[in-house]
Amino acid sequence: MIIIMKPGVTQASILSVTGYIQSHGLDVHISAGKEVTIIGVIGNKSLISSDSLASMKDVERILPVTESYKLANRKFHPDPTSITVGNAVIGPDTLTVMAGPCAIEGEEQLLTIAKTVKECGATFLRGGAYKPRTSPYAFQGLEEEGLRYMQKASYETGLATICEIVSPEAIETAHKYVDMIQIGARNMQNFILLKEAGRSRMPVLLKRGLSATIEEWLNAAEYIIAEGNPNVVLCERGIRTFETATRNTLDISAVPVLKDKTHLPVIVDPSHATGSYRYVPSMARAAVACGADGLMIEVHNDPSCALSDGPQSLNFEKFKALMEELSPYCALVNRRKDALS
Amino acid sequence: MIIIMKPGVTQASILSVTGYIQSHGLDVHISAGKEVTIIGVIGNKSLISSDSLASMKDVERILPVTESYKLANRKFHPDPTSITVGNAVIGPDTLTVMAGPCAIEGEEQLLTIAKTVKECGATFLRGGAYKPRTSPYAFQGLEEEGLRYMQKASYETGLATICEIVSPEAIETAHKYVDMIQIGARNMQNFILLKEAGRSRMPVLLKRGLSATIEEWLNAAEYIIAEGNPNVVLCERGIRTFETATRNTLDISAVPVLKDKTHLPVIVDPSHATGSYRYVPSMARAAVACGADGLMIEVHNDPSCALSDGPQSLNFEKFKALMEELSPYCALVNRRKDALS
Amino acid sequence: MIIIMKPGVTQASILSVTGYIQSHGLDVHISAGKEVTIIGVIGNKSLISSDSLASMKDVERILPVTESYKLANRKFHPDPTSITVGNAVIGPDTLTVMAGPCAIEGEEQLLTIAKTVKECGATFLRGGAYKPRTSPYAFQGLEEEGLRYMQKASYETGLATICEIVSPEAIETAHKYVDMIQIGARNMQNFILLKEAGRSRMPVLLKRGLSATIEEWLNAAEYIIAEGNPNVVLCERGIRTFETATRNTLDISAVPVLKDKTHLPVIVDPSHATGSYRYVPSMARAAVACGADGLMIEVHNDPSCALSDGPQSLNFEKFKALMEELSPYCALVNRRKDALS
Amino acid sequence: MIIIMKPGVTQASILSVTGYIQSHGLDVHISAGKEVTIIGVIGNKSLISSDSLASMKDVERILPVTESYKLANRKFHPDPTSITVGNAVIGPDTLTVMAGPCAIEGEEQLLTIAKTVKECGATFLRGGAYKPRTSPYAFQGLEEEGLRYMQKASYETGLATICEIVSPEAIETAHKYVDMIQIGARNMQNFILLKEAGRSRMPVLLKRGLSATIEEWLNAAEYIIAEGNPNVVLCERGIRTFETATRNTLDISAVPVLKDKTHLPVIVDPSHATGSYRYVPSMARAAVACGADGLMIEVHNDPSCALSDGPQSLNFEKFKALMEELSPYCALVNRRKDALS
Repeated sequence: MIIIMKPGVTQASILSVTGYIQSHGLDVHISAGKEVTIIGVIGNKSLISSDSLASMKDVERILPVTESYKLANRKFHPDPTSITVGNAVIGPDTLTVMAGPCAIEGEEQLLTIAKTVKECGATFLRGGAYKPRTSPYAFQGLEEEGLRYMQKASYETGLATICEIVSPEAIETAHKYVDMIQIGARNMQNFILLKEAGRSRMPVLLKRGLSATIEEWLNAAEYIIAEGNPNVVLCERGIRTFETATRNTLDISAVPVLKDKTHLPVIVDPSHATGSYRYVPSMARAAVACGADGLMIEVHNDPSCALSDGPQSLNFEKFKALMEELSPYCALVNRRKDALS
Repeated sequence: MIIIMKPGVTQASILSVTGYIQSHGLDVHISAGKEVTIIGVIGNKSLISSDSLASMKDVERILPVTESYKLANRKFHPDPTSITVGNAVIGPDTLTVMAGPCAIEGEEQLLTIAKTVKECGATFLRGGAYKPRTSPYAFQGLEEEGLRYMQKASYETGLATICEIVSPEAIETAHKYVDMIQIGARNMQNFILLKEAGRSRMPVLLKRGLSATIEEWLNAAEYIIAEGNPNVVLCERGIRTFETATRNTLDISAVPVLKDKTHLPVIVDPSHATGSYRYVPSMARAAVACGADGLMIEVHNDPSCALSDGPQSLNFEKFKALMEELSPYCALVNRRKDALS
Repeated sequence: MIIIMKPGVTQASILSVTGYIQSHGLDVHISAGKEVTIIGVIGNKSLISSDSLASMKDVERILPVTESYKLANRKFHPDPTSITVGNAVIGPDTLTVMAGPCAIEGEEQLLTIAKTVKECGATFLRGGAYKPRTSPYAFQGLEEEGLRYMQKASYETGLATICEIVSPEAIETAHKYVDMIQIGARNMQNFILLKEAGRSRMPVLLKRGLSATIEEWLNAAEYIIAEGNPNVVLCERGIRTFETATRNTLDISAVPVLKDKTHLPVIVDPSHATGSYRYVPSMARAAVACGADGLMIEVHNDPSCALSDGPQSLNFEKFKALMEELSPYCALVNRRKDALS
Repeated sequence: MIIIMKPGVTQASILSVTGYIQSHGLDVHISAGKEVTIIGVIGNKSLISSDSLASMKDVERILPVTESYKLANRKFHPDPTSITVGNAVIGPDTLTVMAGPCAIEGEEQLLTIAKTVKECGATFLRGGAYKPRTSPYAFQGLEEEGLRYMQKASYETGLATICEIVSPEAIETAHKYVDMIQIGARNMQNFILLKEAGRSRMPVLLKRGLSATIEEWLNAAEYIIAEGNPNVVLCERGIRTFETATRNTLDISAVPVLKDKTHLPVIVDPSHATGSYRYVPSMARAAVACGADGLMIEVHNDPSCALSDGPQSLNFEKFKALMEELSPYCALVNRRKDALS
């Protein structure tokens, strides 16, 4: 941590800052420049409060030097993590494809979709049973009934299953039926939910918040890992910007940035990021080409009848074509698209 | 709802759209322009899915015409709502000031602050007992113990009390000790929490999400009201933009926009919006001048020792000066700064 | 300038950084923490390239400590600047109101508007003769003819006049007819134009770019001042965010931030910021209350017939009401709304 | 164009809107729903002002149905455009690589870089002679001298050359020395410059503004084409968001969106978008994979000594490796990386 003092700082102000730091058992390093005096803090920063320092007299700014996340940090864990879920392995040698409907609508529908995405090469079935919707009057999901269909589809196809959860209770329920839970964008900083997901020890897919910085996102992952659950996968799903031609803006460079900063696997959701099936294949290719560990793609048997997010869903034909198209890209980045066993 | 068809649309595509609409018991109105054909939908739109329509052949865009929130909508409730909490009344003739520490640190500290803000003219004591913090390693609040201090401070001062809650359990606990609950920015779309807050019937202060549109915010309020709880107050606390000179960007024009769109009271939090005590007084004056129903302001007996958000807290002297400074502004907008009784 | 080195940095990397700095005649200050080594640079930073440093081996980040603008910086010029234009004085004891049509449409129209805004207490007539429009097919302004009308309106009313210019040629032309030039948001980083405006010595109103940081904005002002022209006024006119309820988001806290960072006067344009006449009065009051030195407001004799930006223009009646409403706010901030003489 | 009237609109208000439209020779189509009345406009919308309509009584909103750009619009020009510049062809069967230093620093340096990028397979030499810099005190470029070096490098290597221009005068100068001009992000809405670029008939690379929507960007292209110059190439170079881990956020989905909306070629600049050489290769691969017609990449013989933007420049070794790595990706999208002849 570095403390920049204001021009014309008095010796008394410097002493009150250094005194505060030293009284907490840390060391200081003072650098008095011509215009500016800088105080460096040496030692365990968690013992002091940067907020308190920032309120002191003549302090201009506090600059953090080290990241606040540790367990998610690549600096302390240089090798990429791989996470096994059911029959599937996520990262670093695979290209995991999670496919399925935005919302689970019925048993037969889900089974049909599951069989198709399995045939096309997906290793995960995704499906929404708890739907966080902007309006209280929109379809909110089949809840436990939907999860039962997921389990059945998994039995019949061998696909690993993933489902968004929105409350600690839903985690408990999900634990009975599916292999992996997803924390959605709107809940990325629902810290109660993060901690509970950590305690559950289930593999967790953590989506990026709509306007979360990468640093905040990694701190959210830290909440889960700090509870003893290292099985966290990050999912970039678009951020909010001023552009309205797409629903969100896919922050594709988050992929290599995350590869720099964390050892956790990273997957990309082009369906939610763009909001349009037309842009899913090109964004899926881009994600594979730049190093993503996987893709989450909405697939629906009849997008024009979907109860949720139809416009961004691929129909079977388009999904099949995309999976074939992705094969040579997987080869170029040395990833296999198939499951573990 | 209006459906814009693509140029060169076929009669078959138009028929499949109008057929879908009519099969749900609604009427259509076709307007065939030179370049573009437009289909208007007449009737109860909640019966059809705009997502399904958007996925149909030759559909270019769907334009919603009416808002999805109803109970929060001023169109159906033209008079401004006023909400009574303990001895305080929020809107439309008062200027409610909620003041107190970001985090409750101890009983004596809270009492000292409570007495001071009361003397200066605040009608609410705010204080954080559950702190949602970006890093899992930061101070997370005193929880129930903190709420007990709030209750005690309320007994001694007569101030109404408000506290952020982060889980359904915390709502239950808060119900025992405080008068009003706050749903923070990070939980604005935690729909489970919104519904529970609705069921609790406690007055709710709903902060705007970091990158929430006003429309999403009003839909979040709708979640609470739809559960039978009309006591919702909105709190603008800054949105996330590219500007880094302030922590967030106070969206001051949200105040008059909300006054247009909803009957709910609107208050402004200049402390969180700017992140610096230096900008709190000017932003507080601006908020009053443009029609806000109140202010939420962080006050701390010793900001440089605060465990959370010290840099944005006013000390007693600065808060007293601000409250005096605000008096003539309240007079100009015909609001009284004092409590109900 | 502070240089943060990567964890595990070698002595060789440190030496190559310090060697580079010392070879340019500056001093270094090394602070070797447990995790991180930091190199402080002491001396005139303009002699070295932070880009070069950032590319060196084991360099993690470069942190600037001092601002790159000097002449616009309040640190080196603590007293607020006041600028005299014709009969008007901008800052710090006045509340300057610049009012008029978005686009000049005709001589008589302009004169009518000028007389009205003068009667209501404005000291500046604003009017667009060169209109930068998003589409090449939209009305682009009357150009020199429009400026002639401005001059005539000024003769008849005594109002100071201001007009946007979009090219060095337009500055020359404007010099013949009006008192002050405006550089619009889209040209805030048109450095050729900034330099020419600097050389012209005419008073300049510099609008903030749509997504410009305050730091970039002050650097743009520096371009003008560095050419020998200290007569620069800043105008906040809204920034681009994800919110669509208003055309832009008025960054009201830019006013106190600028008052901290620069000595230049700051005015606010609520018309362009919100895009709707409905929100102009409340935003004008907020701007005065938080310390702005003035307002730029669009006024039109018949907004529903305006050739440009009608929806955000006040008609005469609304403008008159606003000016009356602002009087007590001016009194509260110790500003006089009237002209110099 | 569709006009949404307010709930409870009077017949008189409807008549004044329809009267205005009909008086300009257009037709109307009225659709009176239960809650909302909608007026569709049929005919040539450029004859009426949407601003005027928006200011009329009881008008709630105006919804544009058709885009304002025509010549750049794919609807009226379905086949992708290919543009020949010197020996190079941009789009749709090539993958054009424009490489070179951010700023031209000297003759020998430029020649060395030119030869290297040519050997590696680039077909364009890029180099900055006029540098728009945020601070007036930063290096501003060699201007005409730099252009002379570009010409010489082109003679010796056969590379096509491109250079940013910042004023109409610079276009004239550039015309003597280089093959293509670039309009930078900061000048995307410098309409004077756009028109002059249109009149010059030189091929133009139009970079996206830092916070420009795709629609504004295409309207900027329309300015150039409307002056009789169809040779416009678009360059996505990152947009401004809240994320700070990268300099800007590469809006990769702009590539397929543009392919939908316009026939103009689209290239991607991963160097400026990310601000770090580390992220250039992955973003270059993503751009090729998702359908870009080319890449603009900063290459420098010694990035740690570059006068501008060193941290984002590739050195020769890294550029060579990237070009080799891109070959199979070009094959997958059926593009040849080589020049025309």
